[in-house]
Amino acid sequence: MNLSELNTPTLLLDKGRLMTNIAAMQARADRLGVKLRPHLKTLKSAQAARALIAAGASGITVSTLKEAAYFLEHGITDITYAVGMVPAKLAAAASVMAGGADLKIMTDNLDVARAVAATADQSGVRYKLLVEIDCGDNRGGLQAQSEELLQIAEVIADSAAILQGLLTHAGHSYGVDERTAIEQIAAQERDAVVTAAERLRAAGHVIETVSVGSTPTALHALDLSGVSELRAGVYTVFDMDQQSRGVCGTDEIALSVLSSVIGHNKPAGKILLDAGGLALSKDRSADRFRPEVGYGQLCHSDGSIIADLFVTSVSQEHGHVRVRNESDYTKFPVGSRLRILPVHACMTAAAYDYFNLLEDGRVGSRWDRVNGW
Amino acid sequence: MNLSELNTPTLLLDKGRLMTNIAAMQARADRLGVKLRPHLKTLKSAQAARALIAAGASGITVSTLKEAAYFLEHGITDITYAVGMVPAKLAAAASVMAGGADLKIMTDNLDVARAVAATADQSGVRYKLLVEIDCGDNRGGLQAQSEELLQIAEVIADSAAILQGLLTHAGHSYGVDERTAIEQIAAQERDAVVTAAERLRAAGHVIETVSVGSTPTALHALDLSGVSELRAGVYTVFDMDQQSRGVCGTDEIALSVLSSVIGHNKPAGKILLDAGGLALSKDRSADRFRPEVGYGQLCHSDGSIIADLFVTSVSQEHGHVRVRNESDYTKFPVGSRLRILPVHACMTAAAYDYFNLLEDGRVGSRWDRVNGW
Repeated sequence: MNLSELNTPTLLLDKGRLMTNIAAMQARADRLGVKLRPHLKTLKSAQAARALIAAGASGITVSTLKEAAYFLEHGITDITYAVGMVPAKLAAAASVMAGGADLKIMTDNLDVARAVAATADQSGVRYKLLVEIDCGDNRGGLQAQSEELLQIAEVIADSAAILQGLLTHAGHSYGVDERTAIEQIAAQERDAVVTAAERLRAAGHVIETVSVGSTPTALHALDLSGVSELRAGVYTVFDMDQQSRGVCGTDEIALSVLSSVIGHNKPAGKILLDAGGLALSKDRSADRFRPEVGYGQLCHSDGSIIADLFVTSVSQEHGHVRVRNESDYTKFPVGSRLRILPVHACMTAAAYDYFNLLEDGRVGSRWDRVNGW
Repeated sequence: MNLSELNTPTLLLDKGRLMTNIAAMQARADRLGVKLRPHLKTLKSAQAARALIAAGASGITVSTLKEAAYFLEHGITDITYAVGMVPAKLAAAASVMAGGADLKIMTDNLDVARAVAATADQSGVRYKLLVEIDCGDNRGGLQAQSEELLQIAEVIADSAAILQGLLTHAGHSYGVDERTAIEQIAAQERDAVVTAAERLRAAGHVIETVSVGSTPTALHALDLSGVSELRAGVYTVFDMDQQSRGVCGTDEIALSVLSSVIGHNKPAGKILLDAGGLALSKDRSADRFRPEVGYGQLCHSDGSIIADLFVTSVSQEHGHVRVRNESDYTKFPVGSRLRILPVHACMTAAAYDYFNLLEDGRVGSRWDRVNGW
């Protein structure tokens, strides 16, 4: 099928670029001597997970228990749920485990660890727990030197649950755009979990998993001694946020939104697209380093970049494009089609139930996605 | 069912507030002597549409042809698709019409009007066309005095298609927070379409529909002489964006996201929730008048407001809440539940497939939604 036969707005996934990105990160993990456990929060697709595993991934990371159940249904069993557990979700986790998943859950909280231990003791479900470490991101996680880390380990070790290891995420690597700064954050990320692991081992615990990851640090870490696995997700497709930080080129971005020109507002100097805030998301993360990107980079329908043309603002179903000059109205008549490289792939993809696979300029097969909770 | 039995994050719709909002806007439209054609882009729910029609709405407005097909399936036939038409979508529109919908489509573009006329002549499908007028929003629409307006009318009048009328949307009413300023924009909105309608009538055209609408102008218009119908959507549930502009009170907001506390990062001064950028959207429209609102206003699970507690930042699955003081950690332990009044209801609701109806503090029934394109 040609692109012109698709309804708009719709989501395109360039399979060639995807497979190149997958192979490149797997090769990096292999060189660094760590397992790769890709984060499926970006693609949320069983077909994508299978491609990652075929390329060498040891298992997957997910951001919701609904994803865990979905991937299990599709035959993928080695799953880390990398968002903080709460007691009310333990039953859902147990149900995924009962279905055959080797599920790892996570917390940074002593009360939750106590609830995991008590539930494991009562139910016999041997939850595998990762303790989250804050390596400087200031989101979730305990400080590597915290007292609570040892307390959690003890509570779990004294129960039917299993202390699986440690996990950290250097989200603050998104705040810099220089390679040396990313390398430093990658070292910080490694040091934080390795220090925490050494403390736990010194206290007599067996620590199997020492997990780090974020796309920028995964791409720039120089040394992962002491780390057992790498997690990252957005590298599979990249986006303009990553491009704005120098993490990828636009020719590595595998995700785009196909849209139609639905109007010209000449007095306002605008082309209007049928891809707005819902089709693109309202994420503005490229602002810090490339504020001109707005809500996305415009491309021709063949994927070639249109210099200096961006989605400058959005309303729910409208993308507003500030024209460069009058000739843009002739170049992009109402009804013509443009592609948009999204700012933040994870946010944009979540508005769609499936990807249209783009292969050799044509579309045909779809990969499904699991959204929601 | 109690709220505590729901999985989080999930979407709650307070039915009492919804019905009050629906009745209040219908009463306003009745007083102003115009029909009400609510915009279902916010709720995207057949049950909601039926409640609106039962209260007196004359028909509905939709933002996608997928919505049009969905509402038709649920027995609602009087539908205006208020986003610019493109020739490639005419077949989908014809299919909805063939299914029994009295569908109105819209454009502001002469080439599209020619395509509508030609397709109507070839296929015999009597498309009903609204011409979009720009009343100052600078999004879609022709100037009321433009030459193209008359040209479009002529092209349609000379074809098997039907010139239905005019439509405008004062989206710029969201840019002000004073009642008098909103009143002025409402007058501008009315004047623009009424002027356009008079020009077309003077040229011999029959103009049935003269349509205006946006929640702020719908609530504050003083006089709608010459207008036939009012469109608005977000008033059904309101949100913090509307509240920040003085359009509603927090006690009128019918939509909220139920979330769980998943962590305390005390060194960073944060409570973490399981409602992040996907569960809330990354819309920051309340910033202009109430920057402290961030990504949402925190409430207790009974819906009562927690003063000065907001979702201050988000990542994909995490909402970050800056604590007021140490006692917040005790008040909101990990595993406890909080509700969030969203910034922009239309954007937040789009992440969910259904609403949990909240009646007398309990939940049970669900209203479904149609998302995507």
